[in-house]
Amino acid sequence: MPRLRLALAQTDPVVGDLAGNTEQILAAARDAAAAGADILAAGEMALSGYPIEDLAAQPGFLRASGEAVAKLAARLDEAGLGELVVVVGHPDGPHSPRLIGTSNAPTAIAQNCASVLHRGQVVARYAKHHLPNYSVFDEYRVFIPGDELLVLRIKDVDVALIVCEDLWRDGGPVGRVLSADAGLLLVVNASPFERDKDEVRLPLVTRRAVETDTIVAYVNIVGGQDDLVFDGDSVVVDGAGEILARAPQFREHLLIVDVDPEAATDTPLPDAVRRVEIDTDSPSDRRELGRDIAELPDDREQIWNALVLGLRDYVEKNRFPSVVLGLSGGIDSSVVAALAADALGADRVYGISMPSRYSSDGSKDDARDLAERIGLHYSVEPIADLVTPIEEQLHLTGVAAENLQARIRGMIWMAASNSDGHLALTNGNKTEVSVGYSTIYGDAAGGFAPIKDVPKTLVWELARWRNAHALSRGEVEPIPAASIEKPPSAELRPDQTDQDTLPPYELLDEMLERYVTQRQGREELVEAGYDPETVDFVTKLVDRSEWKRRQGAIGPKISGMAFGRDRRLPITYRPTR
Amino acid sequence: MPRLRLALAQTDPVVGDLAGNTEQILAAARDAAAAGADILAAGEMALSGYPIEDLAAQPGFLRASGEAVAKLAARLDEAGLGELVVVVGHPDGPHSPRLIGTSNAPTAIAQNCASVLHRGQVVARYAKHHLPNYSVFDEYRVFIPGDELLVLRIKDVDVALIVCEDLWRDGGPVGRVLSADAGLLLVVNASPFERDKDEVRLPLVTRRAVETDTIVAYVNIVGGQDDLVFDGDSVVVDGAGEILARAPQFREHLLIVDVDPEAATDTPLPDAVRRVEIDTDSPSDRRELGRDIAELPDDREQIWNALVLGLRDYVEKNRFPSVVLGLSGGIDSSVVAALAADALGADRVYGISMPSRYSSDGSKDDARDLAERIGLHYSVEPIADLVTPIEEQLHLTGVAAENLQARIRGMIWMAASNSDGHLALTNGNKTEVSVGYSTIYGDAAGGFAPIKDVPKTLVWELARWRNAHALSRGEVEPIPAASIEKPPSAELRPDQTDQDTLPPYELLDEMLERYVTQRQGREELVEAGYDPETVDFVTKLVDRSEWKRRQGAIGPKISGMAFGRDRRLPITYRPTR
Repeated sequence: MPRLRLALAQTDPVVGDLAGNTEQILAAARDAAAAGADILAAGEMALSGYPIEDLAAQPGFLRASGEAVAKLAARLDEAGLGELVVVVGHPDGPHSPRLIGTSNAPTAIAQNCASVLHRGQVVARYAKHHLPNYSVFDEYRVFIPGDELLVLRIKDVDVALIVCEDLWRDGGPVGRVLSADAGLLLVVNASPFERDKDEVRLPLVTRRAVETDTIVAYVNIVGGQDDLVFDGDSVVVDGAGEILARAPQFREHLLIVDVDPEAATDTPLPDAVRRVEIDTDSPSDRRELGRDIAELPDDREQIWNALVLGLRDYVEKNRFPSVVLGLSGGIDSSVVAALAADALGADRVYGISMPSRYSSDGSKDDARDLAERIGLHYSVEPIADLVTPIEEQLHLTGVAAENLQARIRGMIWMAASNSDGHLALTNGNKTEVSVGYSTIYGDAAGGFAPIKDVPKTLVWELARWRNAHALSRGEVEPIPAASIEKPPSAELRPDQTDQDTLPPYELLDEMLERYVTQRQGREELVEAGYDPETVDFVTKLVDRSEWKRRQGAIGPKISGMAFGRDRRLPITYRPTR
Repeated sequence: MPRLRLALAQTDPVVGDLAGNTEQILAAARDAAAAGADILAAGEMALSGYPIEDLAAQPGFLRASGEAVAKLAARLDEAGLGELVVVVGHPDGPHSPRLIGTSNAPTAIAQNCASVLHRGQVVARYAKHHLPNYSVFDEYRVFIPGDELLVLRIKDVDVALIVCEDLWRDGGPVGRVLSADAGLLLVVNASPFERDKDEVRLPLVTRRAVETDTIVAYVNIVGGQDDLVFDGDSVVVDGAGEILARAPQFREHLLIVDVDPEAATDTPLPDAVRRVEIDTDSPSDRRELGRDIAELPDDREQIWNALVLGLRDYVEKNRFPSVVLGLSGGIDSSVVAALAADALGADRVYGISMPSRYSSDGSKDDARDLAERIGLHYSVEPIADLVTPIEEQLHLTGVAAENLQARIRGMIWMAASNSDGHLALTNGNKTEVSVGYSTIYGDAAGGFAPIKDVPKTLVWELARWRNAHALSRGEVEPIPAASIEKPPSAELRPDQTDQDTLPPYELLDEMLERYVTQRQGREELVEAGYDPETVDFVTKLVDRSEWKRRQGAIGPKISGMAFGRDRRLPITYRPTR
């Protein structure tokens, strides 16, 4: 019989909602105990949600988190689940601040912890050592690093416990806890989705398992939280690099697996490693487990699923009843509408077509066709009679007149949002946002931008994939073929197309990937073989889009004087609303 | 004769503008040499501007900075200024990245350095040890800390050189470099203005000087850079705590002072301290210096000056020709107009009055009166005929109709911005932004919000101060008395005043200071003696304003999916525009 039955709880926590997240873990514990598990592990910050940003600087929230951990331990015990060893991530504090400079400078007072609960008590606690501070992470800003390592001895197995980034650093805590001869490495994570991340994360987990000949159990949270989406994809890999179990992406799951790590020896502990003995009874009647190894779908399906979950969780976690968006008949609004329907059901999606004097009949037909295919709420508000009085009173021409049309449209869906409580969606894609081809307070108006990190060429790919996916399941294709095939146009003046003023999108997206995302300079683009004139044109567009944003002409950012940085309160920490 | 003549160059660098910033330092060096100085020190990152944010992650920019340092040394020498020892702050790199996790994770490749230039060469370089990562600072994110300390031996004096935050840490590098028996501590800084910062910064400099019995020379940059404004206020304090020299706030200045530090001894160097000998000739004919000790004005004047400089530099560094704003006759738009005129001259300020059916005659008169007092460009665009067609077509009532009026107004000044290239200003104050009493894409529309960090009660104080200041100089008071005295109102429905729905502003601002800025919780406000019902009302307003922002109903933030964090390019690094 295998030595340990592990349960990994891939939950979708809500930032700040300690009560709701506690219920998720209790439910997972009930199921894990019913399945005969010895250990249940939830993800990093599964009790508080992740990232908690400036909540980490609020003493009141940290105290509430600490109480929630103690209460979870007590409730597990009361529910008869006290024998199950439960590992859960949460913020810990307030600790003495690293006080520096002016006394009112906000500074780290929290640690990023995983606590071990058993028989109604918190029996051990590990504080994350390596606090990532790059890309989307700002942990060093709000957390104090831990300085002690932890090994749990459970049923004669040494289980080393670390948090997320600790696994990624060469020469980090991993080596030291494993040289205490741990048989199992348990890693609790909040690791967000990126394109092709499965090509990095699983190999890393596998490499760590193989190089130390240890079973690695990697549990991740799942779900959308503002700009991030966590994909789950929790996995258990053995010392031979074999996958023993793998949870599906983008949904909650309890992954249960039997493992048979080597028994503990009495190697002396390395410095700064603490061992905690946990005396637990094995569940007596275990059924045999089936194999639970999810397959990853292809790249486009993964991205689609990420976008759907990110949008759904933004709507649900903020408790919006529904969404509203403008429908132009073009590819961007069509893809956003299809995403919204997949995320929320078509009945919670409100689309408004707002034809102007420059809208082609084709566009109007395509918008209606889309609405019918998807089955969303559809209305038409022509804008000509609204635009004309303003244009005439203000004597507008050129770009100012084009922007006016876009702003009247934004005003219409914002009015619908104000009247009926919809979340307003804005349809801009990454290419358009990068080069500044949008109107602030116009098509850029809205509270959430589902495809703001999707380049135009990928928007088309996703549309084709979604239609093919529908066909393969015998369903109606949601996106009209015409919206995919026709040349893209803003339709703000007669016979306008995007390619009048932009390089072909395939070329443009390649260049933006280098210039914006990979931070290459003009020189590197020219060296890579791109035409110098096109390089100048594109890099200027990007630089100038930032300038226009500053003027108030495009984009979402408003600058202004700030003599200090106030807290940014994640929305869901609202004990009284 | 005193041993050393010091010159501290309080310059106003532009982020990314290496060529322009170089000229500032060359000009200061010319003046310093003409005045017979031995050493010229400029501020932290004076060569690149500060903060450089994600420019620090661009290898191309770091290489260009390195070349600019070498070129500055050469140009000083060519100009016959080679004997002057010049200390200048700049980013240094690219260094080997601290590579972690996925290979495309952006990570620190730069150091925050001060270089010492002499006789055409870079003779020493110090890299900042303590990288602040709290409040407005994100340095740990983009820089690699230094690990070596530096003492310069110049004319038989040991001069210890550190950067900004290094001074603020107890037990930091300061102690170690001074235990090498340094006679002078030279600190190069980029320290932004905060209210009452002079009550913290000068005492710290004084404490360090007295506890180590050393002369401390503290040089700061000056100027607005996006949300920050650096106040200068460079100062030299001796070991008895006496101020020897002090530069004025909020303008460029070359502060020259004679100091007479103790001569160097041959104490062995502590670990990790390097000493560099600089053999320099004393200028032969020095005139005697006058006393140069600026007095700080009172708090309100300091704040007014900070707001004026922040706005001016935002406009000038981004090269906007002019600004446009809506004038309602109320206190907020009046104060913003007066700030803009002080920053740019009235001839670059365009004000638009946009009366609706609910605007009182008093408001219209006050707007016109303000425009005449200030002498700005003034126009009137009534909105009733623009609002009615939209209201009727969309059947809008209540809040949606109120927001529509605000959005038509925003659309009007954005159209003026698009037509004529003005920067659009938005007039929201901190109180209003905190409780969500504004309309996104309406009164919140604009590229820069001059008073977004100024609570409403302070807006009134500043208005009164500015009028009194005008009177004291025999000038016309810019702000109409009626705009200061009348009860504030959004005038979006009949007989509306702010106090219909909000607590008195004195009370509200006190509570917001605690809840928003000091991060106190509801419980702490009640403990402090505030009425629990009012506490619930105000904290809910703040929390709900974040929710409305997310809906797209107010505020500037647009969320959306992002799978990575792209560079945020400071606007002024634009070799080709």
